[in-house]
Amino acid sequence: MTGMPTRDTVEIGLNRFARRGYDLDEVSIVPSRRTRDVDDVSTAWQIDAFRFDIPLVTSPSDAVVSPATAIAVGQAGGLGVLNAEGLWTRYDDPTPAYRRIREAAPEGAPPVSVLQDVYCEPVKPDLITARIKEMRDAGVTTAVRVSPQHTQQLAPAVLAAGVDLLVIQGTIVSAEHVTSQGDALNLKEFIADLDVPVIVGGAANYQTALHLMRTGAAGVIVGVGADSFSTGDTVMGVRVPLASAIVDAAAARRDYLDETGGRYVHVIANGRIETSGAIARALACGADAVQVGEPLRTAAEAPGGGIWWDSVAAHPRLPRGGASPAVSPAGSLQQVLLGPAEAADGRTNLFGALARTMAKTGYRDLKEFQRVDLVIGGHESPTQDH
Amino acid sequence: MTGMPTRDTVEIGLNRFARRGYDLDEVSIVPSRRTRDVDDVSTAWQIDAFRFDIPLVTSPSDAVVSPATAIAVGQAGGLGVLNAEGLWTRYDDPTPAYRRIREAAPEGAPPVSVLQDVYCEPVKPDLITARIKEMRDAGVTTAVRVSPQHTQQLAPAVLAAGVDLLVIQGTIVSAEHVTSQGDALNLKEFIADLDVPVIVGGAANYQTALHLMRTGAAGVIVGVGADSFSTGDTVMGVRVPLASAIVDAAAARRDYLDETGGRYVHVIANGRIETSGAIARALACGADAVQVGEPLRTAAEAPGGGIWWDSVAAHPRLPRGGASPAVSPAGSLQQVLLGPAEAADGRTNLFGALARTMAKTGYRDLKEFQRVDLVIGGHESPTQDH
Amino acid sequence: MTGMPTRDTVEIGLNRFARRGYDLDEVSIVPSRRTRDVDDVSTAWQIDAFRFDIPLVTSPSDAVVSPATAIAVGQAGGLGVLNAEGLWTRYDDPTPAYRRIREAAPEGAPPVSVLQDVYCEPVKPDLITARIKEMRDAGVTTAVRVSPQHTQQLAPAVLAAGVDLLVIQGTIVSAEHVTSQGDALNLKEFIADLDVPVIVGGAANYQTALHLMRTGAAGVIVGVGADSFSTGDTVMGVRVPLASAIVDAAAARRDYLDETGGRYVHVIANGRIETSGAIARALACGADAVQVGEPLRTAAEAPGGGIWWDSVAAHPRLPRGGASPAVSPAGSLQQVLLGPAEAADGRTNLFGALARTMAKTGYRDLKEFQRVDLVIGGHESPTQDH
Amino acid sequence: MTGMPTRDTVEIGLNRFARRGYDLDEVSIVPSRRTRDVDDVSTAWQIDAFRFDIPLVTSPSDAVVSPATAIAVGQAGGLGVLNAEGLWTRYDDPTPAYRRIREAAPEGAPPVSVLQDVYCEPVKPDLITARIKEMRDAGVTTAVRVSPQHTQQLAPAVLAAGVDLLVIQGTIVSAEHVTSQGDALNLKEFIADLDVPVIVGGAANYQTALHLMRTGAAGVIVGVGADSFSTGDTVMGVRVPLASAIVDAAAARRDYLDETGGRYVHVIANGRIETSGAIARALACGADAVQVGEPLRTAAEAPGGGIWWDSVAAHPRLPRGGASPAVSPAGSLQQVLLGPAEAADGRTNLFGALARTMAKTGYRDLKEFQRVDLVIGGHESPTQDH
Repeated sequence: MTGMPTRDTVEIGLNRFARRGYDLDEVSIVPSRRTRDVDDVSTAWQIDAFRFDIPLVTSPSDAVVSPATAIAVGQAGGLGVLNAEGLWTRYDDPTPAYRRIREAAPEGAPPVSVLQDVYCEPVKPDLITARIKEMRDAGVTTAVRVSPQHTQQLAPAVLAAGVDLLVIQGTIVSAEHVTSQGDALNLKEFIADLDVPVIVGGAANYQTALHLMRTGAAGVIVGVGADSFSTGDTVMGVRVPLASAIVDAAAARRDYLDETGGRYVHVIANGRIETSGAIARALACGADAVQVGEPLRTAAEAPGGGIWWDSVAAHPRLPRGGASPAVSPAGSLQQVLLGPAEAADGRTNLFGALARTMAKTGYRDLKEFQRVDLVIGGHESPTQDH
Repeated sequence: MTGMPTRDTVEIGLNRFARRGYDLDEVSIVPSRRTRDVDDVSTAWQIDAFRFDIPLVTSPSDAVVSPATAIAVGQAGGLGVLNAEGLWTRYDDPTPAYRRIREAAPEGAPPVSVLQDVYCEPVKPDLITARIKEMRDAGVTTAVRVSPQHTQQLAPAVLAAGVDLLVIQGTIVSAEHVTSQGDALNLKEFIADLDVPVIVGGAANYQTALHLMRTGAAGVIVGVGADSFSTGDTVMGVRVPLASAIVDAAAARRDYLDETGGRYVHVIANGRIETSGAIARALACGADAVQVGEPLRTAAEAPGGGIWWDSVAAHPRLPRGGASPAVSPAGSLQQVLLGPAEAADGRTNLFGALARTMAKTGYRDLKEFQRVDLVIGGHESPTQDH
Repeated sequence: MTGMPTRDTVEIGLNRFARRGYDLDEVSIVPSRRTRDVDDVSTAWQIDAFRFDIPLVTSPSDAVVSPATAIAVGQAGGLGVLNAEGLWTRYDDPTPAYRRIREAAPEGAPPVSVLQDVYCEPVKPDLITARIKEMRDAGVTTAVRVSPQHTQQLAPAVLAAGVDLLVIQGTIVSAEHVTSQGDALNLKEFIADLDVPVIVGGAANYQTALHLMRTGAAGVIVGVGADSFSTGDTVMGVRVPLASAIVDAAAARRDYLDETGGRYVHVIANGRIETSGAIARALACGADAVQVGEPLRTAAEAPGGGIWWDSVAAHPRLPRGGASPAVSPAGSLQQVLLGPAEAADGRTNLFGALARTMAKTGYRDLKEFQRVDLVIGGHESPTQDH
Repeated sequence: MTGMPTRDTVEIGLNRFARRGYDLDEVSIVPSRRTRDVDDVSTAWQIDAFRFDIPLVTSPSDAVVSPATAIAVGQAGGLGVLNAEGLWTRYDDPTPAYRRIREAAPEGAPPVSVLQDVYCEPVKPDLITARIKEMRDAGVTTAVRVSPQHTQQLAPAVLAAGVDLLVIQGTIVSAEHVTSQGDALNLKEFIADLDVPVIVGGAANYQTALHLMRTGAAGVIVGVGADSFSTGDTVMGVRVPLASAIVDAAAARRDYLDETGGRYVHVIANGRIETSGAIARALACGADAVQVGEPLRTAAEAPGGGIWWDSVAAHPRLPRGGASPAVSPAGSLQQVLLGPAEAADGRTNLFGALARTMAKTGYRDLKEFQRVDLVIGGHESPTQDH
């Protein structure tokens, strides 16, 4: 089936309908009649030829990903994604830029105008080459992100440097971009010509996800990348209830698998996934992996020194998110990802917690876990401060 | 169809039903399978013979509209509406009145009793004439607001001054006002006799909107003008979920178009439209334009100096809203309306953001954009302070 | 029809159902196609032979009702109810008791234990006689409240003193009290023997309201008297969504009217009715009058000096509510009830606001106004502080 | 019927469904047409041969249960449960451990890392024997808790000491634990071989509850033990709306009673039951008894000195809850359980309040009270501080 799926709808007023969507924290996992040893559980994930111990794709945010942290993420079992249009490719030495952000508001959040200013510096293709080389030399799977607007311009440098996975990511991406200029990126043709697998997104619903799968992408990012500090809702009126979006994209994955007779495109969830509980929920809703950014800023290795910002916060005319105040480190990157946790806030041992949820609900691997029982309703945990 | 539309209803108790209404911030826009260049998008709006680059009608609030700011709004592409029963027509020089409001509470919100006092001064018809002349001389489309109660008394002065559009606006207006005094305004006869187009409201539901369209008005204001500081709900028990009211008024517009064989009456949404996201939502629900007030107080040119109040806050016996504390300017009026934004709070670049939302969801003009997909649910952005 | 009414139900779990109830502030009034002059509106209410200009029955709380304030309420057009088991019948001079409460926590809320202590003093029947006489002598309609437990004991003194209306009120009252002691009050026999009309309650649903109507009462109080400081929910797990309870009681009124061929029993709503908006909502849901207490503490004449407490807050073993901190007076009792208002918080001009809501929705009298359109949803006004 | 029960479901997205669950505080008790004297009400509960005046099973938390407080709970009419894997069996004298926790944060909540550290000390079987003996000697019914993981290892010491009731309790327990190690506890065989009755849990849904009943347990704990300080939702994505879980477990009890021709397994509710109102709700939903922990910390006898923590807060790799700041005592344990209350916060006279709720709704005993009318919706009481 490739038609438009139906779902619960609400009649806002006469003859105008809206779908009712659910966000991740409205949905919870229900333990069922079986339990399992945590040591018998696997959180492994594989996309194309690349295998990972944990289903983690980092956000391509300069706040948390430098070449060095991308390497550390790879060594911990995940996939680090460097922004090919970020500070590391705009500045030969980005240290002063980071320092300027950190020092802009020692007590609070750096103003957006400082981010806008720091990101005025142009991107240099030869720096892209150098950064990818540094990651390759460390022996981890390499991935960089480019925006749809700059894909054609920057792809040559990226590919020549021998990247393993290419991430084409904007807040909202479609397979059908219309322009009166006549030079829009044709994703389908572009991907068909490539040798490296592509992850593309973000998509917000079944149709866009299905169309992006049909471009030949290996993975589709679902969600518009909202984090606790993003304001896409206030600025643009756009909101994507992520649990529903993941479920719809998983339906597109199923339908595309059927229509192609066996091509499985991975669904990578992205949006306010900031605790181990949210990671478990996203996978339970049907995601194959999660794109995580904000929680990594608590790692001692985070290049932003505990501050978080998404790239859209630096938009020159219409920023759609802010930077956070700095937090003190909660431990090493290894500890943030794999524990042990010394606090009960869901912000460390992110993937150890996932394994335990799978064990307590009786599942052995992620593909099985996508079928776990869900419930809507009930108390939320006390609010975490961050 | 001109009957009473049906909609989701709730049985409050035995045999007593209420409709379920939705407010603007419960409804969000969902990106779909197409995107478009922002430069290919038009936000133009035309009512009667008057064309505007942006679908903006200002609130007729003294806090944000003086003759000078009405001119500046016109030059920026919108329609400024001066209150013909406000400070500029009560005082030859309103400067001391403004100063008194501003100085009543330098740290907080001016008390309602100060507003009540300042508005005791009677309206002078010759000042109406002078203010309209000032705006006309600047070459912009001119509009003033009168209340239904004083329309018959003040209209001669307004019309003689050559206004382009007349706005007859009260919190709650009907086409059928009953009085034992026998001298109520008959809107239908009044408008039929006029040469200038009339915008009338606020209306709260399908029936009232339809009846107001049948008076011959060019535009109908939908909503009871609630802003963040209005208390019509607490004081009168009246609440109008705006998304549902806009959708219902758009249905009335469609039905009236059919019943007249082609008369298109514009729907102008009014009520807590305080961010660019809310503007996008109101238009997505079916409005042709939005009445915006409170956000304009952040413009450097705002006559209230950053304080906001609605005219109903000055009611002598039953005020239904308060004044706000002052905010510092966020930029020029031009910047508030058209950008660029230096913060991510949805309070500047109000209509540049609209164009971007239209582009990211693939629509070229406002009439098409009224069909964009909507979703109920999901996270709200972090609360803005104002 | 006298059977059990059905209503929206929720299946909490397997085969266990709960009704979905709505509270007053979830329900709002929708303006419709007609408006009316406020001077053409009547808020009059009549029960038995007694006519009132405003549909106000005071809570029998010592915080707001002394003999003097009961007289003032009567002179303003409402019905003041003195507690026959309160401070005015326990103490010859209650001034020191009031002072002790006021001085127990000059900056905050007096502790419950102080209330428990002050109310240990026994009730004196001859003080009941004296207080009623004082009110009668002023020429207003007189009413006192007794609890169901003490009705038989205190009624002789009350009746001998010539009270006009007897209010038998507890938090939860039924027409069928079961006891192993064999001396329970039989409401039906008791009321049948009386010459004065009785108001009885609180009742929480259709059945209890109907059974209380069948006792011969002239009025039934609906709701368990919750106010902003009551904790019946936390302490006992009992909650009565008032909008639904009023609607159900109005259905019982209709059914009882039919079953008796014409006996109309008044429904008096009681519970968190603390703003003019809530008063309008309660009447719109079908109440004939409202029992109001907490807002009267802002009157300069309130005997509690701005502090509020309900009698259940003084229970010796299980208090179910607290006292409030003191507020400064907002005006005279006359102004609180009839205006003008100098603030927009819905706490003064309580019944002037009602008249305006009726006018703006086109209704002439309260009986018609019970049919006004309602909506569920939409923004609440900014929270008032009190 | 022993199949899977159906219930209200929500379609999160295409073809993925979740049940809608309700938490205790969404459900409230509705008074009905009958009332009763509080002295005619019984709150008695009996499991196996053991009879209790109040349906109280304590949480096995070191914060509130020492051998001495377990004895005091028994003397007040309830069942105290000592943790056989807590401080009293790890330390010959736990006083210094308690002191360390108390002194770790004199002004706030002790950090999780201190709990982790204190609980590193191994459990000593001979201390289990000694603690049980101490409680037996006092003449009360004795009960201790063991975790499923350590049941086989610790049960001999527990049983040899002559315990009356064995509680096998983990956050999430199933009747079917799968392990690759081959040495998992077979609950059914284990219980069949025992002479003492077993209470086992927590279970989260109908199926798990039914399977645990089939192990031969005398009681099943329903809920995952969440309290105000637990973070199982944030850490693991697991949430159990308790009202729905109790109702489902009560359905399992009914089905198991039918399938066995008369075996009644008790349902004991556990999760955020922190006020007398919550106790009444849990029993009204169908529980036979409640497991209460956090409120007991306000008793003067609480060994934690007013601090609360659940055992899962001390997990060495993945704590799922924190400790609370200390509160001052609200009275003796007797007063917390049976009154009188000197505050209206639902935190003292916990079971006196239950009796009053039963009386005000007309029920004589707990089994009848499980049928009381329920409502969803309505105001919550003002938030309590703790």
